[in-house]
Amino acid sequence: MIIVLQKDATEKQLQDIVKRVKSCGLEPHVIVGVARTVIGLVGDKQGLDPRVFESMPGVEKAVPIMAPYKLASRDAKAEDTVILVGNAVIGGEKPAYMAGPCAVESREQIMETAYAVKEAGASILRGGAFKPRTSPYSFQGLGEKGLQYLAEAGEAVGLPTVSEVVNPSDVDLVSQYVDILQIGARNMQNFALLRRVGQTRMPVLLKRGLSATIEEWLMAAEYIMSEGNYQVILCERGIRTFETATRNTLDVSAIALVRQLSHLPVVADPSHATGRRDLVVPAGCAAVAAGAQGLLVEVHPNPDAALSDGAQSLTPQQFRQMVRAVRLIAESIAPESADHWWNKNAV
Amino acid sequence: MIIVLQKDATEKQLQDIVKRVKSCGLEPHVIVGVARTVIGLVGDKQGLDPRVFESMPGVEKAVPIMAPYKLASRDAKAEDTVILVGNAVIGGEKPAYMAGPCAVESREQIMETAYAVKEAGASILRGGAFKPRTSPYSFQGLGEKGLQYLAEAGEAVGLPTVSEVVNPSDVDLVSQYVDILQIGARNMQNFALLRRVGQTRMPVLLKRGLSATIEEWLMAAEYIMSEGNYQVILCERGIRTFETATRNTLDVSAIALVRQLSHLPVVADPSHATGRRDLVVPAGCAAVAAGAQGLLVEVHPNPDAALSDGAQSLTPQQFRQMVRAVRLIAESIAPESADHWWNKNAV
Amino acid sequence: MIIVLQKDATEKQLQDIVKRVKSCGLEPHVIVGVARTVIGLVGDKQGLDPRVFESMPGVEKAVPIMAPYKLASRDAKAEDTVILVGNAVIGGEKPAYMAGPCAVESREQIMETAYAVKEAGASILRGGAFKPRTSPYSFQGLGEKGLQYLAEAGEAVGLPTVSEVVNPSDVDLVSQYVDILQIGARNMQNFALLRRVGQTRMPVLLKRGLSATIEEWLMAAEYIMSEGNYQVILCERGIRTFETATRNTLDVSAIALVRQLSHLPVVADPSHATGRRDLVVPAGCAAVAAGAQGLLVEVHPNPDAALSDGAQSLTPQQFRQMVRAVRLIAESIAPESADHWWNKNAV
Amino acid sequence: MIIVLQKDATEKQLQDIVKRVKSCGLEPHVIVGVARTVIGLVGDKQGLDPRVFESMPGVEKAVPIMAPYKLASRDAKAEDTVILVGNAVIGGEKPAYMAGPCAVESREQIMETAYAVKEAGASILRGGAFKPRTSPYSFQGLGEKGLQYLAEAGEAVGLPTVSEVVNPSDVDLVSQYVDILQIGARNMQNFALLRRVGQTRMPVLLKRGLSATIEEWLMAAEYIMSEGNYQVILCERGIRTFETATRNTLDVSAIALVRQLSHLPVVADPSHATGRRDLVVPAGCAAVAAGAQGLLVEVHPNPDAALSDGAQSLTPQQFRQMVRAVRLIAESIAPESADHWWNKNAV
Repeated sequence: MIIVLQKDATEKQLQDIVKRVKSCGLEPHVIVGVARTVIGLVGDKQGLDPRVFESMPGVEKAVPIMAPYKLASRDAKAEDTVILVGNAVIGGEKPAYMAGPCAVESREQIMETAYAVKEAGASILRGGAFKPRTSPYSFQGLGEKGLQYLAEAGEAVGLPTVSEVVNPSDVDLVSQYVDILQIGARNMQNFALLRRVGQTRMPVLLKRGLSATIEEWLMAAEYIMSEGNYQVILCERGIRTFETATRNTLDVSAIALVRQLSHLPVVADPSHATGRRDLVVPAGCAAVAAGAQGLLVEVHPNPDAALSDGAQSLTPQQFRQMVRAVRLIAESIAPESADHWWNKNAV
Repeated sequence: MIIVLQKDATEKQLQDIVKRVKSCGLEPHVIVGVARTVIGLVGDKQGLDPRVFESMPGVEKAVPIMAPYKLASRDAKAEDTVILVGNAVIGGEKPAYMAGPCAVESREQIMETAYAVKEAGASILRGGAFKPRTSPYSFQGLGEKGLQYLAEAGEAVGLPTVSEVVNPSDVDLVSQYVDILQIGARNMQNFALLRRVGQTRMPVLLKRGLSATIEEWLMAAEYIMSEGNYQVILCERGIRTFETATRNTLDVSAIALVRQLSHLPVVADPSHATGRRDLVVPAGCAAVAAGAQGLLVEVHPNPDAALSDGAQSLTPQQFRQMVRAVRLIAESIAPESADHWWNKNAV
Repeated sequence: MIIVLQKDATEKQLQDIVKRVKSCGLEPHVIVGVARTVIGLVGDKQGLDPRVFESMPGVEKAVPIMAPYKLASRDAKAEDTVILVGNAVIGGEKPAYMAGPCAVESREQIMETAYAVKEAGASILRGGAFKPRTSPYSFQGLGEKGLQYLAEAGEAVGLPTVSEVVNPSDVDLVSQYVDILQIGARNMQNFALLRRVGQTRMPVLLKRGLSATIEEWLMAAEYIMSEGNYQVILCERGIRTFETATRNTLDVSAIALVRQLSHLPVVADPSHATGRRDLVVPAGCAAVAAGAQGLLVEVHPNPDAALSDGAQSLTPQQFRQMVRAVRLIAESIAPESADHWWNKNAV
Repeated sequence: MIIVLQKDATEKQLQDIVKRVKSCGLEPHVIVGVARTVIGLVGDKQGLDPRVFESMPGVEKAVPIMAPYKLASRDAKAEDTVILVGNAVIGGEKPAYMAGPCAVESREQIMETAYAVKEAGASILRGGAFKPRTSPYSFQGLGEKGLQYLAEAGEAVGLPTVSEVVNPSDVDLVSQYVDILQIGARNMQNFALLRRVGQTRMPVLLKRGLSATIEEWLMAAEYIMSEGNYQVILCERGIRTFETATRNTLDVSAIALVRQLSHLPVVADPSHATGRRDLVVPAGCAAVAAGAQGLLVEVHPNPDAALSDGAQSLTPQQFRQMVRAVRLIAESIAPESADHWWNKNAV
């Protein structure tokens, strides 16, 4: 950390700060500049809040210089993490396609969708059983029954499955039925839930929170990893901005940047990012062009009759077209991405 | 809901939309305008997603006209809800002061703080035992031990207490020790937790999420109320914006607006809103001037030694000064607020 | 426009509103619903502020149903606008590449860059002569001298040129030297400047403002078009959000959506959107994958010595690689984009 | 500035960076830490872009430690700047009230308003003649005729006047009629305009841009001051956030913070901040409670007939009530603000 003193900080204040730094077990290096004095702190600064120093008299600001995440960082592991689930590969050379309805509505619906998305190129089947809804009066999902139908459908077509878990006490239940546990955007900082899925050894799909910074997102991954579960898949799903013409704003630069900062695989959810069927395909293409290693897409055999999120669901036919385009895009960028993009120094 | 058709929507598309509207149990009123045709939907539209229609051919957009919250609305209850906890009144004529440390650190610390904030004018004692922290490596609170110390301190000085609960499975435990359950900003859409506290009959302090709209905030209150618990206290604590000079941006207009939209009491947390001790007092004064009915303030006997959020904690002396100013401000606006502010038609 | 009445609006209030609607030359259609009464307004509503009605007693809200832009809308012109500048085509089947330094620094620098970007695939040469800088103490550009150098370089390599104009009184001067006038993000709502360039018959590259909604952006285009200049090129360059890890957040969904809403060509500026050289290529690829019809890219023969924005400038070699990838991406999405993306009903 | 090296930066990279630092005329201080090496730069770093270093191999990030504004800073001038215009005092002990219609519509309208606001407590008369409107089809103001009416009305009631200027070429014209030049939010980074008003010796009311950081706002003031005009009044008018229930989000913490960072007077515009008449009074009270030294308020004798912004205009009677409350609030906080708030070390 670097502490910047106020222009008119006194010698007494400087000494108090130096003393405090030492009391934290750190070694202070004082640099007297033309307009400001700064103090560099040397030592193990993990978990130290810069605001501890910022509230001291004579201090203008304190600036952390290290990312607060460790296990999720490329510093900790240089090579890409690749996650294998059944026959699916997430984080490998080709994009992974996770597709299915927002919510499992019936055995027939999920079974029909499973066949359709498998045929269209999906490698993982998604479907919600516990649905976090903004309104308590909206359809909340089928619960365990939905998980059963999802598992049946996955087995029938030979696809691993992913579904959301919203309550720490449901983690065991959901784990019995699905192959990947999903943490939704609204629960990205539900630390009790993060710790709980960290105690499993199941792959976890961690969505970025609506207003989470990249650093907070990686810290949420760190929560899971600090419990010993290293199989975390990051999912960019759009952030909340002033623009309301789309449901959220897909942050493609974050995808590219997280590929640099972390070894974890990164996928994108163009369905929630846009909230509009007619924007899902361009957004999905853009995400992969920016470096996303897979897509999580809402597909429904009859979107207009869907109990939730029908407006942003693709038909199987539209999904097939998207997969075709995305494959070509992934090939288009392969030479650059292999050599350059995720390695700043190579650019 | 109002459905706006595209300029060149066909008669066939119009008929399909009308059919769909009827299939939802609603009555369509078609208005043919100069440039656009619109359809007004009459009936019970609760929980109907506008995007259901927006994805249909010929539709430009669908606009909901009713607020989705019911129990939290002034439509449901015109007069202010007043919540009594011990001797404290929240939502009454005078502001309520909830003060104490971010985290309970020891029996001595919370006891010393309790005496100091009581003496300075606080009517409720706050203190965290389960701390949601961005980093898994930060101090996470004392847990049940912290709740015991908090309860002892509250009893010793005769103040009711408030503390955060982060896990649905902890609700019973926390309820045994405190008088008000706090839902933190990061859990504002943790629906499993909202439902669980809704099943108690304890007052709940519901913080606004970092990027929650006013409508989403009131919908979160609706989750609690829909389980039968009507004792919800809304707490504005700053929203996330592009400005990073302060930790968050205190949204004073939201305070004034929510006073109009809802009968629930509204308080503010100037400590988290600003993140800087030197801005807490002006922000707290501003919140009450805008209509806040109380303040939740971090106070620590020795802020510089605090294990968390010391940088934004006031000393007891500073807190006393704030209470003095806030009381005068509340009196300054009393004539206007009584007659006018929360009643649009009276302005 | 639709006016929604309050639940308890009186008959007298309804009549007052109806009277006001008629006084605006509009015809009111009253729909009495179960919970609310709404009034549909029929007639020419152009330029009418919904808040005129929202401040009336008994009104809950007023909702405009028409986009306020006319000339920029696909309603006004269904087919894509294609702009020809020299041999360059903007808005056609293939992406256009506008490349060059942030600022013209010397005759040698712009000449060297011109040859390099031409060779790498650029069809238009960019270079700033009047630079809007956040600090008055930063390099502000070479002014007219810079325009001369830019024009010379463009002529030497046979590329048309684009450069920013910041003052209405400079429009004539800049028009003498360049082929496309650029309006920067900070001036997107500098209406005096918009009107002035609207009075020319030069193509205008209109950057989206840092916090401009899509509607405001199209309204800015409308300002130019309302003066008779229809050659407007829209440029998405990233919006300001809470995320500070990148300079701005590239809004790829806006690109796809504006392709639907407007007939004007849309390009993207991945250099300003990201602010970091190592993210420019992924962001540029993403923009074209989402439907951008061209890229505006900062390229410098020696980025590390650039007087401004060197950190986000590509080398000519990096630019060449980007062009290669972007061409393949444009081909990858061609089948979908031709048939589907910009036509909602066809999806 | 502080440069933080990557974990695995090589000795060669370190030497290249050190060389670059020296070539910028700065002295590098290398600190070798446990996990990272950092370099402190000593010397005159004004105007140096951190991204110059961030693009170098081996660099993780570069962090500026000095605020980029000089003349606007409290470092440059410790005591508050007080601006006198006629009998009005801006930046003194009591709040200044600038009131009047959004737009001057006729001689009668501005004359009637002038008498009304004077009687209600205003010390400065506002009124727009050149109106920046989002739509080219909206009323754009009366131009010079409006300035004449405003000047007449100001003279008749003995109040100085303020009006917006939007074009550098209009500055001389507007200066002939008014006492304070206003720069609107959309022009806050219209640097040509800032320089031009900086060349006058007229007081300038500088509104904060919709998405301007506090630093950018102070840099805009710096543009004016760097031309020799030190009479700048800062005006917080709400920022753009994700919340759309109010027109903008009034940033009260920014008011308090700018009072610390700068010696310039700070006022607030609660009319534009909220966009709704029923929220103007609470927002105005909040602004003053946070430290604003004045208010800029839209007042119209008949708001419902106003040609622009009627929905957010107060009646003279409402304005009088606001002044009454605001005066009491200013007195309520006087003891704290005098001793403490704007002086961090004193807290």
